[in-house]
Amino acid sequence: MLIEVPQGLNGVAVTDTSIGDVLGDEGRFHYRGHDATDLARRHSFEEAWHLVAVGHLPSPGELAAFGEQLAVARVLPPSLEPLLEPLARTAGAQLGRVRAALSIAADDLGVRPLVDLTPDERAEQAIRVSAALPAIVAALHRASLGLDPVSADGALGAAAAYLQMVTGQRPGPAAARALEHYLTLTIDHGFNASTFTARVVAATGADLADVVGAALGALRGPLHGGAPSRALDALDAIGDPARTPTVVEDWVRAELAAGRRIMGFGHAVYRTRDPRSDVLREVAETMAAAGVETDLVRRAVDVEQRIAATLHEAKPDHPLPSNVEFYAGVVMAGAGLPRALFTPTFAISRAIGWCTHAVEQAAEGKLIRPSARYVGPPLA
Amino acid sequence: MLIEVPQGLNGVAVTDTSIGDVLGDEGRFHYRGHDATDLARRHSFEEAWHLVAVGHLPSPGELAAFGEQLAVARVLPPSLEPLLEPLARTAGAQLGRVRAALSIAADDLGVRPLVDLTPDERAEQAIRVSAALPAIVAALHRASLGLDPVSADGALGAAAAYLQMVTGQRPGPAAARALEHYLTLTIDHGFNASTFTARVVAATGADLADVVGAALGALRGPLHGGAPSRALDALDAIGDPARTPTVVEDWVRAELAAGRRIMGFGHAVYRTRDPRSDVLREVAETMAAAGVETDLVRRAVDVEQRIAATLHEAKPDHPLPSNVEFYAGVVMAGAGLPRALFTPTFAISRAIGWCTHAVEQAAEGKLIRPSARYVGPPLA
Repeated sequence: MLIEVPQGLNGVAVTDTSIGDVLGDEGRFHYRGHDATDLARRHSFEEAWHLVAVGHLPSPGELAAFGEQLAVARVLPPSLEPLLEPLARTAGAQLGRVRAALSIAADDLGVRPLVDLTPDERAEQAIRVSAALPAIVAALHRASLGLDPVSADGALGAAAAYLQMVTGQRPGPAAARALEHYLTLTIDHGFNASTFTARVVAATGADLADVVGAALGALRGPLHGGAPSRALDALDAIGDPARTPTVVEDWVRAELAAGRRIMGFGHAVYRTRDPRSDVLREVAETMAAAGVETDLVRRAVDVEQRIAATLHEAKPDHPLPSNVEFYAGVVMAGAGLPRALFTPTFAISRAIGWCTHAVEQAAEGKLIRPSARYVGPPLA
Repeated sequence: MLIEVPQGLNGVAVTDTSIGDVLGDEGRFHYRGHDATDLARRHSFEEAWHLVAVGHLPSPGELAAFGEQLAVARVLPPSLEPLLEPLARTAGAQLGRVRAALSIAADDLGVRPLVDLTPDERAEQAIRVSAALPAIVAALHRASLGLDPVSADGALGAAAAYLQMVTGQRPGPAAARALEHYLTLTIDHGFNASTFTARVVAATGADLADVVGAALGALRGPLHGGAPSRALDALDAIGDPARTPTVVEDWVRAELAAGRRIMGFGHAVYRTRDPRSDVLREVAETMAAAGVETDLVRRAVDVEQRIAATLHEAKPDHPLPSNVEFYAGVVMAGAGLPRALFTPTFAISRAIGWCTHAVEQAAEGKLIRPSARYVGPPLA
């Protein structure tokens, strides 16, 4: 009586969504019908956030009100303050610490079980939780350095405010704009494992701290993929082809021979290009032209082309284009973020997607509760 | 190109499992081929735990070694000690606090990404995490009362040790045995939402703190169902039919007229009886015969029969037998647990199931990554 589907649910439509879609064959993805790369290039992060969370691009008046709503919510929950220092001393994984902090802050944030809320209340809580997360991440990071939390200037946009909360200083407009590109491109991307986790938990009617806490656990999984620091680590490990001409080719062949995957290359859905990689390379090159991380960007572009060529030579029938991860680290480093914050920063933008998916899922009011084929010893 | 399946994945076999199965039509469920009600009646909790986690009922030697392994792991992670008091002051949901504590303790527990572990290491970490959880839950509870944590006598079984860690006193054998029944019956129960959440997160290769933290979020969802205190709250609200003869019938009709569900009755899978309810009623009646919670048990049995009869009259074609929740609260109260610990205690036994499912899922080494039908505005 069980319905058989491919393992891992690949290609199985578990629900309807009007949040966005990934068109792998076309190398495009979108939020509510708007090409995400266009959004990143031509709109502010807040406009894209409003589009995803509210459902349409904001009018100037809506955008101003939304910016104020975000600024008000961009605060460190007070119950976290006395816990920042002891939390920073726990040596667990960074995302685990964020999960702990979010669980502790749940009451300050006023989250309530989604099943008990009206659609409007759910939407408001989704914005509130995703707006508070950057303040939590920044404060945890500063505490790990022995530094007190810093509030952001209320007039700043979300990306600039995050950079200020992390570094303690107002960023330049170029750094903030570079980060905005990255954040806009990573709000949502289909039914990946963390987004699906968020929906499974939201379907139980739990609250948004439960939802985001669960999704953070999935995001942390190495097979999920989101670890933008790895590509930068690899760049460091490889060295500079400008000094040692065949260093990239030698490294790629050694990695492949050892059966390892090349971080920052290949994607489950995109066969030709990962459109996020294209935009982020442009952003990196714009930064470099303005004198920021010039050497890193030059080396990254050189290494990317050499890796791609070597991979193509090794596996001509199996395209492995650079993915979002490859230039993400370069862009975040250029924006002034330390490597330890790359994955939490990914979580910050993706949490907007998670929360919006949770709101959409909660409206269905129905559990996601599959079955399994029992294949063990039979019941006597 | 999407594969269409019923919404909520009902009846969709997402994977194979040899851990257990629920036979709804027969009113039975089992762990690895052993009827779970037989296990609860005839075996110790540790034997059932070993069966689920290791794969077979233990020999006497294996059982002794397993008991020692559990006793060693039954400790409060040291990094939690300074955080117990501030954690207890956060007013968030009980399971949220457990999730925070587990996230903080991840490093002490030595959990590592499942993808980096051998099958033996995964199995060992699964036992370690589920053995530590009762110590964490008990210490958080005591801290909320302003009390210091208490260690358990190493010679006690897991259920008795948990009661000692909660109350500070060695429980009598009847209380421990009653709780053992409950814990054994709630280790696993098919692909419910929290177990499925655990598997989705485990499939990313994340660690067991990520897995259990996510599953706790799903368990907290009101639609998931696990809130054994609600049935006891209802018993209190209803009053005693021995004094007011039609109080139950009047209450049920009023609840149904208001469109509310009767907590503790009805189950998505069991059509005739929830076998867990039968065992827990027997346990409650045994307790009452021994003079424990005699009045509560008498009242619960009386109210259950009257609710069932009234529901049958109101909905003759839609059987709503009492479920695991109805007598769970009575049994836990009889075992000496405060109502605030009912759901965390459920989480303690179910975590054994979650961790075992995580180990099984991690062996597949593959993401659970479904799709969705995009139904919003088209991409221009």
